[in-house]
Amino acid sequence: MATVRLAAIKALNGSSRLRNLSCSLNHRCKALSIRAFSAAMSPPSKAVVYDLHGPPDTVTRIIERPPVELKENDVCVKMLAAPINPSDINRIEGVYPVRPQVPAVGGYEGVGEVYSMGSSVKGLSPGDWVIPLPTSSGTWQTYIVKEQSAWHKINKDTPLEYAATVTVNPLTALRMLEDFVNLNSGDAIVQNGATSIVGQCIIQLARIRGIHSVNIIRDRAGSDEVKEKLKKLGADVVYTESQLEVKNVKGLLANIPEPALGFNCVGGNSASLVLKFLRQGGTMVTYGGMAKKPITVSTSSFIFKDLSLRGFWLQKWMNSDKAEECRSMVDYLLDLVREGKLKYEMELSPFNEFHTALDKALGKLGSQPKQIIQF
Amino acid sequence: MATVRLAAIKALNGSSRLRNLSCSLNHRCKALSIRAFSAAMSPPSKAVVYDLHGPPDTVTRIIERPPVELKENDVCVKMLAAPINPSDINRIEGVYPVRPQVPAVGGYEGVGEVYSMGSSVKGLSPGDWVIPLPTSSGTWQTYIVKEQSAWHKINKDTPLEYAATVTVNPLTALRMLEDFVNLNSGDAIVQNGATSIVGQCIIQLARIRGIHSVNIIRDRAGSDEVKEKLKKLGADVVYTESQLEVKNVKGLLANIPEPALGFNCVGGNSASLVLKFLRQGGTMVTYGGMAKKPITVSTSSFIFKDLSLRGFWLQKWMNSDKAEECRSMVDYLLDLVREGKLKYEMELSPFNEFHTALDKALGKLGSQPKQIIQF
Repeated sequence: MATVRLAAIKALNGSSRLRNLSCSLNHRCKALSIRAFSAAMSPPSKAVVYDLHGPPDTVTRIIERPPVELKENDVCVKMLAAPINPSDINRIEGVYPVRPQVPAVGGYEGVGEVYSMGSSVKGLSPGDWVIPLPTSSGTWQTYIVKEQSAWHKINKDTPLEYAATVTVNPLTALRMLEDFVNLNSGDAIVQNGATSIVGQCIIQLARIRGIHSVNIIRDRAGSDEVKEKLKKLGADVVYTESQLEVKNVKGLLANIPEPALGFNCVGGNSASLVLKFLRQGGTMVTYGGMAKKPITVSTSSFIFKDLSLRGFWLQKWMNSDKAEECRSMVDYLLDLVREGKLKYEMELSPFNEFHTALDKALGKLGSQPKQIIQF
Repeated sequence: MATVRLAAIKALNGSSRLRNLSCSLNHRCKALSIRAFSAAMSPPSKAVVYDLHGPPDTVTRIIERPPVELKENDVCVKMLAAPINPSDINRIEGVYPVRPQVPAVGGYEGVGEVYSMGSSVKGLSPGDWVIPLPTSSGTWQTYIVKEQSAWHKINKDTPLEYAATVTVNPLTALRMLEDFVNLNSGDAIVQNGATSIVGQCIIQLARIRGIHSVNIIRDRAGSDEVKEKLKKLGADVVYTESQLEVKNVKGLLANIPEPALGFNCVGGNSASLVLKFLRQGGTMVTYGGMAKKPITVSTSSFIFKDLSLRGFWLQKWMNSDKAEECRSMVDYLLDLVREGKLKYEMELSPFNEFHTALDKALGKLGSQPKQIIQF
């Protein structure tokens, strides 16, 4: 009987016919039905979906999705905010190596509050703030149901936009500073794409550990302003690519030691500049390719300069049994945010203006801050 | 008095005037003088020297060098054989990152027999075979004086040409199979430049450990013959570069597992072919750049395929406190040679035909086997 009722409710999924059906049942049954609905089903959800891979501004649309049944370990979360990251765009375009099966809901991180829970869930209450951890597809929707183990409870004092964005960019920055070279206070790193959110996080996280940062930005109007902004975050030096067209870039290090670790999210010539700054035996980690150009390295860089070239992909790292480590890293990063030690520029955009936010994220409206959808 | 006599002998260094001077001394003094000469000085040496960096065939000449004084821990070795390696040529050209100070004697490895020793030397006898270890500059001469600790005694049953060449190419091959990826029996490696001596050693050393090898050679006349030769050494598969211009090179692996480790001594497109064969998370080690072209790598190879690119330079490895390990590796390799498990083609050339051997090593006389100067 319960199964039949649930199936009926599913079939009706939030349409006005639900109320009519309820009215036709006797009082007792009606009470049971409402309890069953509120305890065992999510509300219907509005979601950004794409049925095909392609240009995100043409293939995405907002639809209403039916309620989802909550199993005993499930938690239904009302999403509060989720960012539009470049990797979200790549996933929709179908150029990401792991393609979500279409139709799919967009988004890969975010924050929400607990709305309802299955009967076996312990340690969470409605209203608690949680983030999906490990990150996973489908955060661009108003309600999400997942097992309790897929959610990480965070401090509600966190600014919403940071809670929504901590698990991709800041975590990448933190991980990359930890995983490749053993750095000590007084050491240095070099990076290109320093204005990216990962870049800004690297500057600040390095600074906290007493590590100097050498930063490369692309030539652009207003680069002096950008340099000042990065220096305020803790950057030791910031150079545009054209400033580095000199015979001996290391002469520009002044009192900073030669960097042992470099980060590349651009490729092409900009990656070569990172390599030039590295010290003997240094490591360059590639985590992006904004210039869409490959990385070119001389033979002698490997043999005589003993450089190592590596790559970092957060998604792979997260999926390799690092759940606990991941949770404590997120807590550490959000502590820094609340202490004012980790910041980056973002813009909250209401969900009903999703496509404007997407256009901004796609660069169609000039340089814009990171877009965070607020549900 | 002894000092004066030594200085006089040095000044005369092996000229016919030495005998005249000796005749003019009384009997006792003459006896002392001869003992002093034989115990404390090396014979004069013939050496291949260069006074300037430049084309090896024009800047090298054979000269006679004066006797050298033996200190109490010194051993004077009569060189028997030494190879002409590509790195010797690079050193003379001045394109090697560590430039020997000119004037310099050529050569970087070889084998000799003990000729005489200082009074404190233990455990060596005249006639013993020794090789300089760690390798060092100046093996292209007939007599060399170095401290005992700089010599490694080897088994005299070793074929001369292998004793002369074990410390550069076979040691590079052995080291590179050990230092980067933990390989087990049944695993696979991929390499380009498979016909080089390092390449041939890799095939054989891998085979001994049950490791498969995928080998890439350049397109050339007689490539079928070359393939057969490498297969006889233990190569699992051998492809020319043009055979690998296919969409899916991994389809050519047949039953061989995807290689976890690759070796590159060519650069350019040939390095890209090595990268294509590597499995997820694989490592490519560059140890040469015969094509004189850089290595180009896509961003996604680092991020999504998680490839690591490294380099290997034997000279740096040897100078990093590995003396003991080095000695046991050389012994292991020479054991394999004596057991017939490690072989590669060489040609012994008499010292008085050095410049012909050099022309062969420089490729001026077509494809030639490795040239070994026999003193």
